[in-house]
Amino acid sequence: MRLATIRTAEGTRAVRVDGDRYVETGFGDVGELLARDDWRSLAESADGPAHAAGTAGLAPVVPSPGKIVCVGLNYRNHILEMGRELPEHPTLFAKYADALIGPYDDIALPAESDAVDWEAELALVVGATVRRADESRAAAAIAGFTVLNDVTMRDWQYRTAQWLQGKTFEGTTPLGPVLVTPDELPGGVRPELAISGAVDGEEVQKSNTGDLVFDPVALVRYVSTIMTLRPGDVIATGTPGGVGHARKPPRYLADGGTLVTEIEGIGRLENRARRS
Amino acid sequence: MRLATIRTAEGTRAVRVDGDRYVETGFGDVGELLARDDWRSLAESADGPAHAAGTAGLAPVVPSPGKIVCVGLNYRNHILEMGRELPEHPTLFAKYADALIGPYDDIALPAESDAVDWEAELALVVGATVRRADESRAAAAIAGFTVLNDVTMRDWQYRTAQWLQGKTFEGTTPLGPVLVTPDELPGGVRPELAISGAVDGEEVQKSNTGDLVFDPVALVRYVSTIMTLRPGDVIATGTPGGVGHARKPPRYLADGGTLVTEIEGIGRLENRARRS
Repeated sequence: MRLATIRTAEGTRAVRVDGDRYVETGFGDVGELLARDDWRSLAESADGPAHAAGTAGLAPVVPSPGKIVCVGLNYRNHILEMGRELPEHPTLFAKYADALIGPYDDIALPAESDAVDWEAELALVVGATVRRADESRAAAAIAGFTVLNDVTMRDWQYRTAQWLQGKTFEGTTPLGPVLVTPDELPGGVRPELAISGAVDGEEVQKSNTGDLVFDPVALVRYVSTIMTLRPGDVIATGTPGGVGHARKPPRYLADGGTLVTEIEGIGRLENRARRS
Repeated sequence: MRLATIRTAEGTRAVRVDGDRYVETGFGDVGELLARDDWRSLAESADGPAHAAGTAGLAPVVPSPGKIVCVGLNYRNHILEMGRELPEHPTLFAKYADALIGPYDDIALPAESDAVDWEAELALVVGATVRRADESRAAAAIAGFTVLNDVTMRDWQYRTAQWLQGKTFEGTTPLGPVLVTPDELPGGVRPELAISGAVDGEEVQKSNTGDLVFDPVALVRYVSTIMTLRPGDVIATGTPGGVGHARKPPRYLADGGTLVTEIEGIGRLENRARRS
Protein backbone atom coordinates (compact mmCIF):
# COMPACT_ATOMS: atom_id res chain seq x y z
CA MET A 1 0.00 0.00 0.00
CA ARG A 2 1.10 3.52 -0.81
CA LEU A 3 -0.06 6.53 1.20
CA ALA A 4 0.38 10.26 0.66
CA THR A 5 -0.72 13.59 2.08
CA ILE A 6 -2.28 15.84 -0.55
CA ARG A 7 -3.08 19.54 -0.43
CA THR A 8 -6.64 20.57 -1.22
CA ALA A 9 -8.42 23.91 -1.02
CA GLU A 10 -9.82 22.75 2.32
CA GLY A 11 -6.48 21.68 3.77
CA THR A 12 -4.42 18.49 3.65
CA ARG A 13 -5.85 14.99 3.31
CA ALA A 14 -4.33 11.55 3.85
CA VAL A 15 -4.90 9.45 0.76
CA ARG A 16 -4.27 5.93 -0.48
CA VAL A 17 -2.48 5.97 -3.81
CA ASP A 18 -4.24 3.63 -6.28
CA GLY A 19 -2.23 3.91 -9.47
CA ASP A 20 -2.92 7.44 -10.64
CA ARG A 21 -5.80 8.02 -8.24
CA TYR A 22 -5.62 9.48 -4.74
CA VAL A 23 -8.43 8.11 -2.56
CA GLU A 24 -9.20 10.06 0.60
CA THR A 25 -9.05 8.09 3.86
CA GLY A 26 -10.97 10.50 6.06
CA PHE A 27 -7.86 11.72 7.91
CA GLY A 28 -6.14 15.09 7.62
CA ASP A 29 -2.68 13.72 6.92
CA VAL A 30 -0.73 10.48 7.07
CA GLY A 31 0.46 11.25 10.60
CA GLU A 32 -3.14 11.49 11.83
CA LEU A 33 -4.03 8.27 10.04
CA LEU A 34 -1.09 6.39 11.57
CA ALA A 35 -2.19 7.48 15.05
CA ARG A 36 -5.11 5.05 14.72
CA ASP A 37 -4.32 1.51 15.91
CA ASP A 38 -6.23 0.14 12.94
CA TRP A 39 -4.65 2.52 10.41
CA ARG A 40 -3.80 -0.28 8.01
CA SER A 41 -7.33 -1.65 7.62
CA LEU A 42 -8.79 1.86 7.65
CA ALA A 43 -6.49 2.87 4.80
CA GLU A 44 -7.01 -0.34 2.86
CA SER A 45 -10.78 -0.06 2.98
CA ALA A 46 -10.99 3.71 2.51
CA ASP A 47 -13.39 4.76 -0.22
CA GLY A 48 -13.55 8.56 0.08
CA PRO A 49 -13.46 11.20 -2.64
CA ALA A 50 -10.84 10.48 -5.29
CA HIS A 51 -8.45 12.89 -7.01
CA ALA A 52 -6.48 12.36 -10.17
CA ALA A 53 -2.74 12.29 -9.48
CA GLY A 54 -1.13 15.41 -10.87
CA THR A 55 -4.08 17.63 -10.07
CA ALA A 56 -3.52 17.53 -6.32
CA GLY A 57 -0.29 18.84 -4.85
CA LEU A 58 1.66 16.72 -2.40
CA ALA A 59 2.57 17.84 1.12
CA PRO A 60 5.38 16.27 3.15
CA VAL A 61 4.03 12.73 3.59
CA VAL A 62 3.96 13.37 7.36
CA PRO A 63 3.66 17.16 7.65
CA SER A 64 4.25 17.47 11.40
CA PRO A 65 6.12 14.52 12.88
CA GLY A 66 6.41 14.66 16.65
CA LYS A 67 10.06 13.75 16.23
CA ILE A 68 12.47 13.65 13.33
CA VAL A 69 15.57 11.67 14.29
CA CYS A 70 18.44 11.72 11.81
CA VAL A 71 21.34 9.29 11.58
CA GLY A 72 24.88 10.24 10.58
CA LEU A 73 27.54 7.99 8.99
CA ASN A 74 25.52 4.87 8.18
CA TYR A 75 26.53 3.58 4.72
CA ARG A 76 29.12 0.84 5.05
CA ASN A 77 30.90 1.40 1.72
CA HIS A 78 31.16 5.12 2.29
CA ILE A 79 32.59 4.72 5.80
CA LEU A 80 35.11 2.13 4.68
CA GLU A 81 36.17 4.13 1.60
CA MET A 82 36.87 7.08 3.89
CA GLY A 83 39.23 4.84 5.85
CA ARG A 84 37.11 4.93 8.98
CA GLU A 85 36.04 2.05 11.17
CA LEU A 86 32.42 1.01 11.31
CA PRO A 87 30.79 2.74 14.28
CA GLU A 88 29.68 0.88 17.38
CA HIS A 89 26.67 3.16 17.92
CA PRO A 90 24.58 5.20 15.52
CA THR A 91 25.22 8.94 15.47
CA LEU A 92 21.88 10.67 16.09
CA PHE A 93 20.88 14.28 15.63
CA ALA A 94 17.59 16.11 15.33
CA LYS A 95 15.67 18.15 12.81
CA TYR A 96 12.53 20.14 13.64
CA ALA A 97 9.32 19.77 11.65
CA ASP A 98 9.64 23.40 10.44
CA ALA A 99 12.38 22.15 8.12
CA LEU A 100 10.02 19.98 6.06
CA ILE A 101 8.72 20.74 2.58
CA GLY A 102 6.68 18.70 0.11
CA PRO A 103 8.25 16.43 -2.51
CA TYR A 104 8.00 19.03 -5.31
CA ASP A 105 8.28 22.23 -3.27
CA ASP A 106 11.09 24.74 -3.61
CA ILE A 107 14.00 24.49 -1.19
CA ALA A 108 14.32 27.83 0.63
CA LEU A 109 17.99 28.71 0.20
CA PRO A 110 18.67 30.95 3.17
CA ALA A 111 20.44 34.25 2.57
CA GLU A 112 22.66 33.38 5.54
CA SER A 113 24.37 30.36 3.94
CA ASP A 114 26.37 29.82 0.79
CA ALA A 115 27.13 26.16 1.43
CA VAL A 116 23.84 24.31 0.98
CA ASP A 117 24.49 20.64 0.36
CA TRP A 118 22.45 17.49 -0.38
CA GLU A 119 22.04 14.17 1.45
CA ALA A 120 19.73 11.61 -0.20
CA GLU A 121 18.21 9.34 2.45
CA LEU A 122 15.77 6.53 3.07
CA ALA A 123 13.39 7.53 5.88
CA LEU A 124 11.23 5.22 7.92
CA VAL A 125 7.90 6.30 9.37
CA VAL A 126 6.75 4.88 12.69
CA GLY A 127 3.25 3.37 12.83
CA ALA A 128 2.93 2.26 16.46
CA THR A 129 3.89 3.35 19.96
CA VAL A 130 7.00 1.52 21.18
CA ARG A 131 9.58 1.85 23.94
CA ARG A 132 12.55 -0.49 24.37
CA ALA A 133 11.25 -2.51 21.44
CA ASP A 134 12.63 -5.98 20.82
CA GLU A 135 13.33 -7.01 17.25
CA SER A 136 9.85 -8.20 16.38
CA ARG A 137 8.09 -5.21 17.94
CA ALA A 138 10.55 -2.84 16.25
CA ALA A 139 9.89 -4.44 12.88
CA ALA A 140 6.13 -4.27 13.41
CA ALA A 141 6.38 -0.59 14.40
CA ILE A 142 7.64 0.43 10.95
CA ALA A 143 4.62 1.71 9.02
CA GLY A 144 6.66 2.15 5.89
CA PHE A 145 9.37 3.99 4.02
CA THR A 146 9.70 7.26 2.19
CA VAL A 147 12.40 9.51 0.71
CA LEU A 148 14.04 12.46 2.47
CA ASN A 149 16.81 14.79 1.44
CA ASP A 150 18.65 16.02 4.54
CA VAL A 151 19.63 19.30 2.87
CA THR A 152 22.38 20.79 5.03
CA MET A 153 23.93 24.23 5.48
CA ARG A 154 27.54 23.05 5.84
CA ASP A 155 28.81 26.43 7.06
CA TRP A 156 26.26 26.42 9.89
CA GLN A 157 26.67 22.69 10.57
CA TYR A 158 30.34 23.24 11.36
CA ARG A 159 30.09 26.57 13.22
CA THR A 160 30.15 24.51 16.41
CA ALA A 161 30.64 20.84 17.26
CA GLN A 162 26.89 20.19 17.22
CA TRP A 163 25.32 19.84 13.79
CA LEU A 164 21.73 20.88 14.61
CA GLN A 165 21.89 24.47 13.37
CA GLY A 166 23.02 23.41 9.91
CA LYS A 167 20.40 20.69 9.68
CA THR A 168 17.15 22.42 10.46
CA PHE A 169 16.84 25.60 8.41
CA GLU A 170 13.20 26.21 7.71
CA GLY A 171 11.76 24.90 4.46
CA THR A 172 14.79 22.95 3.29
CA THR A 173 14.05 19.23 3.81
CA PRO A 174 11.81 17.51 1.24
CA LEU A 175 9.92 14.43 2.49
CA GLY A 176 7.81 12.12 0.34
CA PRO A 177 6.37 11.64 -2.17
CA VAL A 178 4.64 8.63 -0.62
CA LEU A 179 4.93 6.17 2.22
CA VAL A 180 5.26 2.60 0.96
CA THR A 181 4.47 -0.25 3.35
CA PRO A 182 7.25 -2.81 3.86
CA ASP A 183 5.31 -5.68 2.26
CA GLU A 184 5.66 -3.93 -1.11
CA LEU A 185 9.44 -3.58 -0.96
CA PRO A 186 12.22 -6.10 -1.61
CA GLY A 187 13.80 -6.74 1.79
CA GLY A 188 10.64 -5.64 3.62
CA VAL A 189 11.55 -3.77 6.84
CA ARG A 190 15.22 -3.93 5.74
CA PRO A 191 14.67 -2.73 2.20
CA GLU A 192 17.28 -3.24 -0.49
CA LEU A 193 16.66 -0.44 -2.93
CA ALA A 194 18.74 1.66 -5.26
CA ILE A 195 19.05 5.21 -3.88
CA SER A 196 20.37 8.15 -5.88
CA GLY A 197 20.65 11.89 -5.91
CA ALA A 198 21.13 14.22 -8.89
CA VAL A 199 21.95 17.91 -9.02
CA ASP A 200 21.10 19.85 -12.19
CA GLY A 201 20.65 16.55 -13.98
CA GLU A 202 24.01 15.07 -12.96
CA GLU A 203 23.98 12.01 -10.71
CA VAL A 204 25.99 12.79 -7.57
CA GLN A 205 24.96 10.04 -5.15
CA LYS A 206 24.27 6.36 -5.87
CA SER A 207 24.06 3.46 -3.49
CA ASN A 208 21.70 0.80 -2.15
CA THR A 209 19.75 0.99 1.10
CA GLY A 210 20.82 -2.57 1.88
CA ASP A 211 24.27 -1.15 2.71
CA LEU A 212 23.18 0.49 5.99
CA VAL A 213 25.32 -0.32 9.03
CA PHE A 214 22.32 0.21 11.33
CA ASP A 215 19.26 -1.04 9.47
CA PRO A 216 15.75 0.32 10.06
CA VAL A 217 14.83 -2.32 12.65
CA ALA A 218 18.06 -1.74 14.57
CA LEU A 219 17.43 2.02 14.51
CA VAL A 220 13.90 1.66 15.90
CA ARG A 221 15.28 -0.56 18.67
CA TYR A 222 18.08 1.89 19.48
CA VAL A 223 16.02 5.07 19.44
CA SER A 224 13.19 3.44 21.40
CA THR A 225 15.68 2.64 24.17
CA ILE A 226 16.03 6.38 24.67
CA MET A 227 12.41 7.43 24.30
CA THR A 228 9.01 6.30 23.15
CA LEU A 229 8.55 6.31 19.40
CA ARG A 230 5.06 7.30 18.32
CA PRO A 231 3.02 7.10 15.11
CA GLY A 232 4.24 9.62 12.56
CA ASP A 233 7.74 9.92 14.01
CA VAL A 234 10.37 9.84 11.29
CA ILE A 235 13.85 8.34 11.34
CA ALA A 236 16.13 9.43 8.47
CA THR A 237 18.64 6.63 8.04
CA GLY A 238 21.70 8.51 6.77
CA THR A 239 23.23 9.29 3.40
CA PRO A 240 25.73 7.48 1.16
CA GLY A 241 28.85 9.12 -0.30
CA GLY A 242 28.74 11.83 -2.92
CA VAL A 243 27.81 14.94 -0.97
CA GLY A 244 28.97 18.26 -2.38
CA HIS A 245 31.06 19.26 0.64
CA ALA A 246 33.40 16.30 0.12
CA ARG A 247 34.18 17.26 -3.49
CA LYS A 248 37.29 19.09 -4.53
CA PRO A 249 36.40 21.83 -4.99
CA PRO A 250 33.19 21.63 -2.94
CA ARG A 251 29.93 21.97 -4.79
CA TYR A 252 26.71 23.39 -3.39
CA LEU A 253 23.13 24.06 -4.46
CA ALA A 254 22.80 27.26 -6.45
CA ASP A 255 19.78 29.50 -6.79
CA GLY A 256 17.54 27.92 -9.42
CA GLY A 257 19.33 24.58 -9.29
CA THR A 258 17.41 21.30 -9.20
CA LEU A 259 17.78 18.45 -6.75
CA VAL A 260 16.31 15.05 -7.56
CA THR A 261 16.32 12.33 -4.91
CA GLU A 262 15.11 8.89 -5.87
CA ILE A 263 14.63 5.53 -4.22
CA GLU A 264 13.64 2.61 -6.39
CA GLY A 265 10.16 1.32 -5.55
CA ILE A 266 9.23 4.40 -3.52
CA GLY A 267 9.52 7.41 -5.78
CA ARG A 268 11.34 10.66 -6.31
CA LEU A 269 11.61 14.11 -4.84
CA GLU A 270 12.11 16.93 -7.35
CA ASN A 271 12.97 20.24 -5.77
CA ARG A 272 14.26 23.52 -7.07
CA ALA A 273 16.51 25.64 -4.86
CA ARG A 274 15.28 29.22 -4.52
CA ARG A 275 17.06 32.04 -2.77
CA SER A 276 14.42 34.03 -0.89
CA MET B 1 2.69 37.68 36.26
CA ARG B 2 3.36 34.06 37.05
CA LEU B 3 1.80 31.21 35.07
CA ALA B 4 1.79 27.46 35.61
CA THR B 5 0.25 24.29 34.22
CA ILE B 6 -1.53 22.24 36.88
CA ARG B 7 -2.77 18.67 36.78
CA THR B 8 -6.42 18.10 37.64
CA ALA B 9 -8.60 15.01 37.51
CA GLU B 10 -9.94 16.33 34.19
CA GLY B 11 -6.52 16.99 32.66
CA THR B 12 -4.07 19.88 32.76
CA ARG B 13 -5.03 23.54 33.10
CA ALA B 14 -3.11 26.76 32.49
CA VAL B 15 -3.35 28.91 35.62
CA ARG B 16 -2.26 32.32 36.84
CA VAL B 17 -0.44 32.05 40.14
CA ASP B 18 -1.83 34.58 42.64
CA GLY B 19 0.19 34.05 45.80
CA ASP B 20 -0.91 30.63 46.98
CA ARG B 21 -3.89 30.42 44.63
CA TYR B 22 -3.97 28.96 41.14
CA VAL B 23 -6.62 30.67 39.01
CA GLU B 24 -7.70 28.83 35.86
CA THR B 25 -7.36 30.78 32.60
CA GLY B 26 -9.62 28.61 30.44
CA PHE B 27 -6.71 27.02 28.53
CA GLY B 28 -5.43 23.48 28.78
CA ASP B 29 -1.81 24.40 29.42
CA VAL B 30 0.53 27.37 29.22
CA GLY B 31 1.55 26.46 25.67
CA GLU B 32 -2.08 26.67 24.53
CA LEU B 33 -2.52 29.97 26.33
CA LEU B 34 0.59 31.48 24.72
CA ALA B 35 -0.70 30.53 21.26
CA ARG B 36 -3.29 33.29 21.65
CA ASP B 37 -2.09 36.70 20.45
CA ASP B 38 -3.77 38.30 23.46
CA TRP B 39 -2.42 35.76 25.96
CA ARG B 40 -1.20 38.42 28.34
CA SER B 41 -4.51 40.22 28.79
CA LEU B 42 -6.40 36.91 28.79
CA ALA B 43 -4.20 35.63 31.60
CA GLU B 44 -4.27 38.89 33.55
CA SER B 45 -8.06 39.08 33.49
CA ALA B 46 -8.73 35.35 33.97
CA ASP B 47 -11.18 34.61 36.76
CA GLY B 48 -11.79 30.86 36.46
CA PRO B 49 -11.99 28.23 39.19
CA ALA B 50 -9.25 28.61 41.80
CA HIS B 51 -7.15 25.92 43.46
CA ALA B 52 -5.06 26.21 46.60
CA ALA B 53 -1.36 25.80 45.81
CA GLY B 54 -0.13 22.53 47.19
CA THR B 55 -3.35 20.70 46.46
CA ALA B 56 -2.84 20.72 42.69
CA GLY B 57 0.16 19.03 41.15
CA LEU B 58 2.30 20.88 38.66
CA ALA B 59 3.00 19.66 35.14
CA PRO B 60 5.93 20.87 33.02
CA VAL B 61 5.04 24.55 32.60
CA VAL B 62 4.81 23.92 28.84
CA PRO B 63 4.04 20.20 28.58
CA SER B 64 4.52 19.81 24.81
CA PRO B 65 6.72 22.52 23.28
CA GLY B 66 6.90 22.34 19.50
CA LYS B 67 10.65 22.80 19.85
CA ILE B 68 13.10 22.59 22.71
CA VAL B 69 16.40 24.17 21.67
CA CYS B 70 19.30 23.77 24.10
CA VAL B 71 22.48 25.82 24.28
CA GLY B 72 25.89 24.43 25.24
CA LEU B 73 28.82 26.34 26.75
CA ASN B 74 27.24 29.67 27.59
CA TYR B 75 28.46 30.81 31.04
CA ARG B 76 31.37 33.20 30.66
CA ASN B 77 33.12 32.41 33.96
CA HIS B 78 32.88 28.69 33.37
CA ILE B 79 34.29 28.91 29.83
CA LEU B 80 37.15 31.15 30.92
CA GLU B 81 37.99 29.02 33.97
CA MET B 82 38.25 26.01 31.66
CA GLY B 83 40.84 27.94 29.66
CA ARG B 84 38.69 28.15 26.56
CA GLU B 85 37.96 31.14 24.41
CA LEU B 86 34.52 32.65 24.34
CA PRO B 87 32.61 31.13 21.41
CA GLU B 88 31.69 33.13 18.33
CA HIS B 89 28.42 31.24 17.84
CA PRO B 90 26.13 29.47 20.28
CA THR B 91 26.30 25.68 20.32
CA LEU B 92 22.77 24.39 19.77
CA PHE B 93 21.33 20.93 20.25
CA ALA B 94 17.84 19.51 20.62
CA LYS B 95 15.74 17.73 23.17
CA TYR B 96 12.36 16.15 22.39
CA ALA B 97 9.26 16.91 24.46
CA ASP B 98 9.15 13.27 25.66
CA ALA B 99 12.06 14.16 27.93
CA LEU B 100 10.04 16.61 30.03
CA ILE B 101 8.72 16.02 33.55
CA GLY B 102 7.00 18.29 36.06
CA PRO B 103 8.90 20.34 38.64
CA TYR B 104 8.38 17.80 41.44
CA ASP B 105 8.21 14.59 39.41
CA ASP B 106 10.69 11.75 39.70
CA ILE B 107 13.56 11.65 37.22
CA ALA B 108 13.41 8.28 35.40
CA LEU B 109 16.98 6.97 35.75
CA PRO B 110 17.31 4.65 32.77
CA ALA B 111 18.67 1.15 33.36
CA GLU B 112 20.93 1.75 30.33
CA SER B 113 23.03 4.54 31.91
CA ASP B 114 25.13 4.82 35.02
CA ALA B 115 26.34 8.37 34.34
CA VAL B 116 23.30 10.59 34.86
CA ASP B 117 24.42 14.17 35.45
CA TRP B 118 22.80 17.53 36.22
CA GLU B 119 22.76 20.88 34.40
CA ALA B 120 20.82 23.70 36.09
CA GLU B 121 19.53 26.15 33.46
CA LEU B 122 17.46 29.24 32.88
CA ALA B 123 14.92 28.55 30.12
CA LEU B 124 13.02 31.11 28.12
CA VAL B 125 9.56 30.45 26.74
CA VAL B 126 8.53 32.00 23.44
CA GLY B 127 5.25 33.95 23.37
CA ALA B 128 5.00 35.08 19.75
CA THR B 129 5.75 33.88 16.23
CA VAL B 130 9.05 35.32 14.94
CA ARG B 131 11.50 34.68 12.14
CA ARG B 132 14.73 36.63 11.65
CA ALA B 133 13.75 38.79 14.60
CA ASP B 134 15.57 42.05 15.18
CA GLU B 135 16.47 43.01 18.75
CA SER B 136 13.18 44.60 19.69
CA ARG B 137 11.04 41.86 18.17
CA ALA B 138 13.20 39.21 19.79
CA ALA B 139 12.82 40.87 23.19
CA ALA B 140 9.06 41.16 22.73
CA ALA B 141 8.83 37.48 21.74
CA ILE B 142 10.01 36.31 25.15
CA ALA B 143 6.89 35.41 27.15
CA GLY B 144 8.92 34.72 30.26
CA PHE B 145 11.42 32.55 32.06
CA THR B 146 11.38 29.26 33.89
CA VAL B 147 13.80 26.70 35.31
CA LEU B 148 15.02 23.58 33.53
CA ASN B 149 17.50 20.92 34.50
CA ASP B 150 19.12 19.48 31.38
CA VAL B 151 19.70 16.10 33.03
CA THR B 152 22.21 14.27 30.83
CA MET B 153 23.32 10.67 30.36
CA ARG B 154 27.03 11.39 29.92
CA ASP B 155 27.86 7.89 28.68
CA TRP B 156 25.27 8.20 25.91
CA GLN B 157 26.13 11.86 25.22
CA TYR B 158 29.68 10.86 24.36
CA ARG B 159 28.97 7.59 22.51
CA THR B 160 29.24 9.63 19.32
CA ALA B 161 30.18 13.21 18.47
CA GLN B 162 26.55 14.34 18.55
CA TRP B 163 25.08 14.86 22.03
CA LEU B 164 21.39 14.28 21.27
CA GLN B 165 21.12 10.69 22.49
CA GLY B 166 22.42 11.60 25.96
CA LYS B 167 20.17 14.62 26.21
CA THR B 168 16.72 13.30 25.50
CA PHE B 169 16.06 10.20 27.56
CA GLU B 170 12.37 10.04 28.32
CA GLY B 171 11.17 11.51 31.61
CA THR B 172 14.43 13.06 32.72
CA THR B 173 14.16 16.85 32.21
CA PRO B 174 12.21 18.84 34.83
CA LEU B 175 10.69 22.12 33.60
CA GLY B 176 8.93 24.67 35.81
CA PRO B 177 7.61 25.34 38.36
CA VAL B 178 6.25 28.55 36.81
CA LEU B 179 6.76 30.95 33.94
CA VAL B 180 7.56 34.46 35.20
CA THR B 181 7.09 37.39 32.83
CA PRO B 182 10.17 39.58 32.26
CA ASP B 183 8.62 42.66 33.92
CA GLU B 184 8.82 40.87 37.27
CA LEU B 185 12.52 40.07 37.03
CA PRO B 186 15.62 42.22 37.62
CA GLY B 187 17.18 42.65 34.20
CA GLY B 188 13.90 41.95 32.41
CA VAL B 189 14.50 39.99 29.20
CA ARG B 190 18.16 39.68 30.22
CA PRO B 191 17.54 38.55 33.77
CA GLU B 192 20.25 38.73 36.41
CA LEU B 193 19.33 36.04 38.86
CA ALA B 194 21.19 33.68 41.16
CA ILE B 195 21.02 30.13 39.77
CA SER B 196 21.99 27.06 41.74
CA GLY B 197 21.81 23.31 41.79
CA ALA B 198 22.06 20.94 44.74
CA VAL B 199 22.41 17.16 44.87
CA ASP B 200 21.38 15.34 48.04
CA GLY B 201 21.38 18.69 49.84
CA GLU B 202 24.87 19.73 48.76
CA GLU B 203 25.20 22.77 46.51
CA VAL B 204 27.03 21.75 43.33
CA GLN B 205 26.30 24.62 40.94
CA LYS B 206 26.10 28.33 41.67
CA SER B 207 26.20 31.25 39.29
CA ASN B 208 24.17 34.17 37.98
CA THR B 209 22.12 34.23 34.78
CA GLY B 210 23.63 37.62 33.98
CA ASP B 211 26.85 35.79 33.08
CA LEU B 212 25.52 34.31 29.83
CA VAL B 213 27.68 34.86 26.75
CA PHE B 214 24.59 34.71 24.51
CA ASP B 215 21.74 36.32 26.42
CA PRO B 216 18.08 35.40 25.89
CA VAL B 217 17.46 38.15 23.33
CA ALA B 218 20.55 37.16 21.34
CA LEU B 219 19.45 33.53 21.41
CA VAL B 220 15.97 34.32 20.10
CA ARG B 221 17.56 36.34 17.30
CA TYR B 222 20.03 33.58 16.44
CA VAL B 223 17.57 30.67 16.52
CA SER B 224 14.95 32.65 14.61
CA THR B 225 17.47 33.14 11.81
CA ILE B 226 17.35 29.37 11.31
CA MET B 227 13.62 28.80 11.74
CA THR B 228 10.40 30.33 12.94
CA LEU B 229 10.02 30.38 16.70
CA ARG B 230 6.46 29.83 17.86
CA PRO B 231 4.51 30.28 21.09
CA GLY B 232 5.45 27.62 23.62
CA ASP B 233 8.86 26.89 22.12
CA VAL B 234 11.54 26.63 24.79
CA ILE B 235 15.19 27.68 24.66
CA ALA B 236 17.36 26.31 27.48
CA THR B 237 20.20 28.78 27.87
CA GLY B 238 23.03 26.55 29.09
CA THR B 239 24.52 25.57 32.43
CA PRO B 240 27.27 27.05 34.62
CA GLY B 241 30.19 25.05 36.02
CA GLY B 242 29.79 22.36 38.65
CA VAL B 243 28.44 19.41 36.72
CA GLY B 244 29.19 15.95 38.10
CA HIS B 245 31.08 14.70 35.06
CA ALA B 246 33.79 17.36 35.52
CA ARG B 247 34.52 16.31 39.10
CA LYS B 248 37.40 14.11 40.06
CA PRO B 249 36.17 11.48 40.58
CA PRO B 250 32.98 12.10 38.59
CA ARG B 251 29.74 12.15 40.50
CA TYR B 252 26.33 11.16 39.15
CA LEU B 253 22.74 10.93 40.29
CA ALA B 254 22.06 7.80 42.30
CA ASP B 255 18.79 5.95 42.72
CA GLY B 256 16.81 7.80 45.38
CA GLY B 257 19.01 10.89 45.21
CA THR B 258 17.50 14.37 45.15
CA LEU B 259 18.17 17.15 42.69
CA VAL B 260 17.15 20.72 43.53
CA THR B 261 17.45 23.40 40.86
CA GLU B 262 16.68 26.97 41.85
CA ILE B 263 16.60 30.37 40.20
CA GLU B 264 16.03 33.40 42.38
CA GLY B 265 12.73 35.09 41.61
CA ILE B 266 11.38 32.16 39.60
CA GLY B 267 11.33 29.13 41.86
CA ARG B 268 12.73 25.69 42.37
CA LEU B 269 12.55 22.23 40.89
CA GLU B 270 12.76 19.38 43.38
CA ASN B 271 13.16 15.99 41.81
CA ARG B 272 14.05 12.56 43.07
CA ALA B 273 15.97 10.18 40.84
CA ARG B 274 14.31 6.77 40.55
CA ARG B 275 15.70 3.76 38.74
CA SER B 276 12.77 2.12 36.95
